[in-house]
Amino acid sequence: MTQVTGPAAVDVEKPEDGITPPSRFDTAAVGELLLGRWAAIRRESRRLAGLPELAGIGGLTMEEHRERVSAQLKYLVDSGSVHRAFPAELGGEDNHGGNIAGFEELVVADPSLQIKAGVQWGLFGAAVLHLGTREHHEKWLPSIMNLEVPGAFAMTETGHGSDVASIGTTAVYDPAAEEFVINTPHRGAWKDYLGNAAKDGLAAVVFAKLVTLGVDHGVHAFYVPIRDAQRNFLPGVGGEDDGLKGGLNGIDNGRLHFDSVRIPRTNLLDRYGQVHPDGRYTSPIASPGRRFFTMLGTLVQGRVSLDGAAVAASKVALAIAVKYAAERRQFNAASELEEEVLLDYQRHQRRLLTRLATTYAASFAHEELLEKFDAVFSGAQDTDADRQDLETLAAALKPLSTWHALDTLQECREACGGAGFLAENRFTALRADLDIYATFEGDNNVLLQLVAKRLLADYAKEFRNADFGALARWVAAQAADATLHRTGLRQVAQAVADSGSGRKSASYLKDENTQRQLLTERVSTMVREVAADLKRASKLPQAEAAALFNSRQHELIEAARAHAELLQWEAFTRALPGIDDGDSRQILTWVRDLFGLGLVEKNLAWYLMNGRLSAQRAKTLGDYIHRLLQRLRPFALDLVEAFGYGPEHLRAAIATGAEQQRQDEAADYARRLRASGSAPLPEKVARQRDKAAARLKQDLA
Amino acid sequence: MTQVTGPAAVDVEKPEDGITPPSRFDTAAVGELLLGRWAAIRRESRRLAGLPELAGIGGLTMEEHRERVSAQLKYLVDSGSVHRAFPAELGGEDNHGGNIAGFEELVVADPSLQIKAGVQWGLFGAAVLHLGTREHHEKWLPSIMNLEVPGAFAMTETGHGSDVASIGTTAVYDPAAEEFVINTPHRGAWKDYLGNAAKDGLAAVVFAKLVTLGVDHGVHAFYVPIRDAQRNFLPGVGGEDDGLKGGLNGIDNGRLHFDSVRIPRTNLLDRYGQVHPDGRYTSPIASPGRRFFTMLGTLVQGRVSLDGAAVAASKVALAIAVKYAAERRQFNAASELEEEVLLDYQRHQRRLLTRLATTYAASFAHEELLEKFDAVFSGAQDTDADRQDLETLAAALKPLSTWHALDTLQECREACGGAGFLAENRFTALRADLDIYATFEGDNNVLLQLVAKRLLADYAKEFRNADFGALARWVAAQAADATLHRTGLRQVAQAVADSGSGRKSASYLKDENTQRQLLTERVSTMVREVAADLKRASKLPQAEAAALFNSRQHELIEAARAHAELLQWEAFTRALPGIDDGDSRQILTWVRDLFGLGLVEKNLAWYLMNGRLSAQRAKTLGDYIHRLLQRLRPFALDLVEAFGYGPEHLRAAIATGAEQQRQDEAADYARRLRASGSAPLPEKVARQRDKAAARLKQDLA
Repeated sequence: MTQVTGPAAVDVEKPEDGITPPSRFDTAAVGELLLGRWAAIRRESRRLAGLPELAGIGGLTMEEHRERVSAQLKYLVDSGSVHRAFPAELGGEDNHGGNIAGFEELVVADPSLQIKAGVQWGLFGAAVLHLGTREHHEKWLPSIMNLEVPGAFAMTETGHGSDVASIGTTAVYDPAAEEFVINTPHRGAWKDYLGNAAKDGLAAVVFAKLVTLGVDHGVHAFYVPIRDAQRNFLPGVGGEDDGLKGGLNGIDNGRLHFDSVRIPRTNLLDRYGQVHPDGRYTSPIASPGRRFFTMLGTLVQGRVSLDGAAVAASKVALAIAVKYAAERRQFNAASELEEEVLLDYQRHQRRLLTRLATTYAASFAHEELLEKFDAVFSGAQDTDADRQDLETLAAALKPLSTWHALDTLQECREACGGAGFLAENRFTALRADLDIYATFEGDNNVLLQLVAKRLLADYAKEFRNADFGALARWVAAQAADATLHRTGLRQVAQAVADSGSGRKSASYLKDENTQRQLLTERVSTMVREVAADLKRASKLPQAEAAALFNSRQHELIEAARAHAELLQWEAFTRALPGIDDGDSRQILTWVRDLFGLGLVEKNLAWYLMNGRLSAQRAKTLGDYIHRLLQRLRPFALDLVEAFGYGPEHLRAAIATGAEQQRQDEAADYARRLRASGSAPLPEKVARQRDKAAARLKQDLA
Repeated sequence: MTQVTGPAAVDVEKPEDGITPPSRFDTAAVGELLLGRWAAIRRESRRLAGLPELAGIGGLTMEEHRERVSAQLKYLVDSGSVHRAFPAELGGEDNHGGNIAGFEELVVADPSLQIKAGVQWGLFGAAVLHLGTREHHEKWLPSIMNLEVPGAFAMTETGHGSDVASIGTTAVYDPAAEEFVINTPHRGAWKDYLGNAAKDGLAAVVFAKLVTLGVDHGVHAFYVPIRDAQRNFLPGVGGEDDGLKGGLNGIDNGRLHFDSVRIPRTNLLDRYGQVHPDGRYTSPIASPGRRFFTMLGTLVQGRVSLDGAAVAASKVALAIAVKYAAERRQFNAASELEEEVLLDYQRHQRRLLTRLATTYAASFAHEELLEKFDAVFSGAQDTDADRQDLETLAAALKPLSTWHALDTLQECREACGGAGFLAENRFTALRADLDIYATFEGDNNVLLQLVAKRLLADYAKEFRNADFGALARWVAAQAADATLHRTGLRQVAQAVADSGSGRKSASYLKDENTQRQLLTERVSTMVREVAADLKRASKLPQAEAAALFNSRQHELIEAARAHAELLQWEAFTRALPGIDDGDSRQILTWVRDLFGLGLVEKNLAWYLMNGRLSAQRAKTLGDYIHRLLQRLRPFALDLVEAFGYGPEHLRAAIATGAEQQRQDEAADYARRLRASGSAPLPEKVARQRDKAAARLKQDLA
């Protein structure tokens, strides 16, 4: 625990009645809670991520970085750390949640390593695993697992990223030859941004529209060899290097195109759709739409793992920046002899501790997502509804956590000033690498729109089977609610209840049920209002319906974000009872309050406009947040220590205690100088002395 | 002008009474207005910035990049483009504003080139120019100007960045030898992050505490040779390379330290403080504090030019992203045959056009800052008050524009998806380079705090000489004001006035005086409230006063930000009459409204809490902003074209029309396929056909 010094140490806050302030934070217990169900695998993966041979190195050329990462992938194979999701009979562990948990931690070594591994085993290999059948597994998985065959996941095209259903590549079945013929019809249909495509890939899982007997059955996946052993393109296959990127330059992203490339019929990964030798098409899923989404759904693990990796990167950034902020001093304020510790400045606390709170929330929410993912993929809870819930949850959380990571890395960079900009302090490279996490495996805005559509659908479903009476009652209740909120009657009641007391308002704000109610009501009201606006869309011609929907797009996406934030808050709140130690639970509860009230503050205008908070209460919110920051200040170092990353993971010069050593040295120098009596006099003092001497001389004269 | 298609084209908005919608935007006239007073110099500098030999190249090693930039600097010397600020008698032009205008545009070539030039001529050279006297100019400026002597600006130390007054390096005068002895007392006092220090620098302007005859006269600047012609450190000088950075790797940043390095007495840059041979110290500025700030003030041009460079980078980013968004299509909505253009999506408009509006505001505000800078540095208006105003203005605008550039570059990157992440599309490298602009030449948070202190001081000054009666009247007025706002009486009046009419509310919001009043009242109220809270600080012991101040730090900085936003809004508003063409002025007025109302929306909670807007009016704000976005959509391409950057500046593959070509090719392919009659049937249609055939067969049977 840190000794609090400087201006923030002066307690301007009255102690609360009957509460003994917590004095210790059990970093071990909280650390264990954060590690979650797959703690052992996370620890093992962190051990690997801390090895010098797996660590990213700054300043490599693109070619050197690619070579290094390719070699590191072999190391991962040898250490047996990337096969957990594969079938036990092929040497795997059928452990889906554990696999992702371990995979996420690799981001701490080098995001290029993580994503290159993700391409090979999480996309290319997983497509064969989940879209193929036993014969495919036996034929291709062993060489994918042991990296004999590096492969690309050829889904995205230059012309279509988020809208996979509209890709242009075709696979037309030729019954005479019992082969599929793969073609790229135009430049926009080139496969693009594919890891392993520029250099290493020998094969690819290619997504193409399956056409047989003149019928287009929509997007399916095909196993397509693309290079020979000498790494020359096979006949009909072409491509190019995507070249330098903003980050992740250890991965050889590239483009592929196909000119009448023939593959055997059996190279169709046919779990969800089969083509018989005569060209007949069959599928266990009758609806082409549902079939498409089922196939894509098997790939949800990409989003799940990016969510976790983003949380891990945020933890590393905060661990570095908080450690530095607790040592670094700048500007005199409280005393002439000693400068202030950065972390004692209110603004610095606002910048770092609010993001610390969000990181805790995102971490607990991710653990729940991972549990859900494991339940579905292990088959333990694998209904259609479960799969849909998993997809919605992943689509909600991944945007928030990836944006949060970028925001946190940048704020930490700036909070460390010029030192934060040096490559040796990690922030800039991590940020450059994680940049793309915001748009790959689903553009964040598109994902949130998916979530919003699900919210609207759920809302509509609620009333689909309701009789007229139920709907009328609901409308009446809604109207009453609107009246109450819109006229500000509830506001007036709050104002009267508080009667100007900040204490009463604070106890209202810190109440768990208050926070839940505020966050929940915002989501439900936003969804209800947009749904009401969009209701008439179903009766409009397509273009007008689209225009109406478009006129509410921004609000829709904001509703989805509010929903995702609520999910994070609920996960954090559910995690709190997992800490037995009262002091630690109290401190974590403050962190949760900081997160929840930070959300309320961010959306305060909504709460005021919709009569959920009175202006009187709203005005106390900022002060209460600052009180929380002050309370958490003494535990800031503990809170980042609980993340469990050691120096081998942080690998930042400013997080080694070097700054403390410099501060001590400078303070020691100043002390010795003062003691020596040879310190120069400040000009101001010297001038006063001279004036006094002159006066004395005059008096004596 | 662009043809609007897709969902947004359906006009859901009623035309306003008596207003003919504008049909054309005069990009040339608006472009000229944006170029400002130094248009000719900007054009010449843009011509240079568009040359292939000055353009940044991706993928260079740090060493290669450094070499390239060093060579480019010689090119700048030869083209005579970097001497405008230097004295005419030495081959310069005494043109301070024009010099900065030209310098800013270099960011478009490569930020490393810009900042390396800034180090040499804007910091190292400018320090000799502004802190030295004629003798120094004649002795050192020619070789600085022609780059014979590359130099470092050695102010920042590892231990002290923003707090220059606390640096540790000392320069002790030795009257016997008539020399200063420069010393680095401890590791924290190493000079750090200095461009030209790692490799190229032969000399440095070193900031150190001047000690003579036992008195410390505070920080002064000294001209110190650091390397010999073979680039070996001179005796007593040492240093190291800062190594790889998050960006700007074409600059050789490094550290320097000094061990009893002796320089002649005359190497003190002594415009503001002289040491006579016998060691006597004299200065034209009696107060050591004022002297220090006067010396630092001569370096304000760094902040001014970063403000302009950040605006230029934002313009480049938006020009690329808007062009791509106007060509790129994704997802069917309004029609099954054609996908929607990205820029027709409301969310996409929100993301790009709001930032476009802020960029216009920042551009006009920067032009005013540059005029002010020129007035001071040319001597036309150079009182103490002018200098202070200039410094406050620069400290207010630089944080906003540099943060805005980072935010804009990132949003543009994401808005272009995977393509945005490729180095060939510019965003990522520009963002990486500009990252440090947020903390160098003054940490943005520290600068805003300076602005806030100035606001508080001005506020206090207003009442310093007021008699008791004036103060009492003011307090009474304030109280009346508080009563009116806090009880919500004004809100009620607004609600009654609007009586539910969105039209009335919109005409209220778009009124220039409304916007001004809203933005102005927020600043004045925030300052007044913080000032009232801090009033008792003057009577408290230092530590308690510091704690009180710290407890309001966040609000203080937010008040400074509000002030800076108001400055941007006022500058935009003042610029509007500069456009003669009515249509163009109307369109620019919408852009200004979008900026102003975007600020109100961002701070809506404040307006509601403080009774400046009724919930009824606040609720119409979002819709009105969306109407503005729709109105501006047809002019989006024109608005970025007016920035005046050509393909030689954008240098982005996605801004060349390549996407339109791909879209055309894909549409043409689809058309030909449909026309050929050989297009495969979608499975859904085929199944309906089969069912119908089966029924027919049954019927016939």
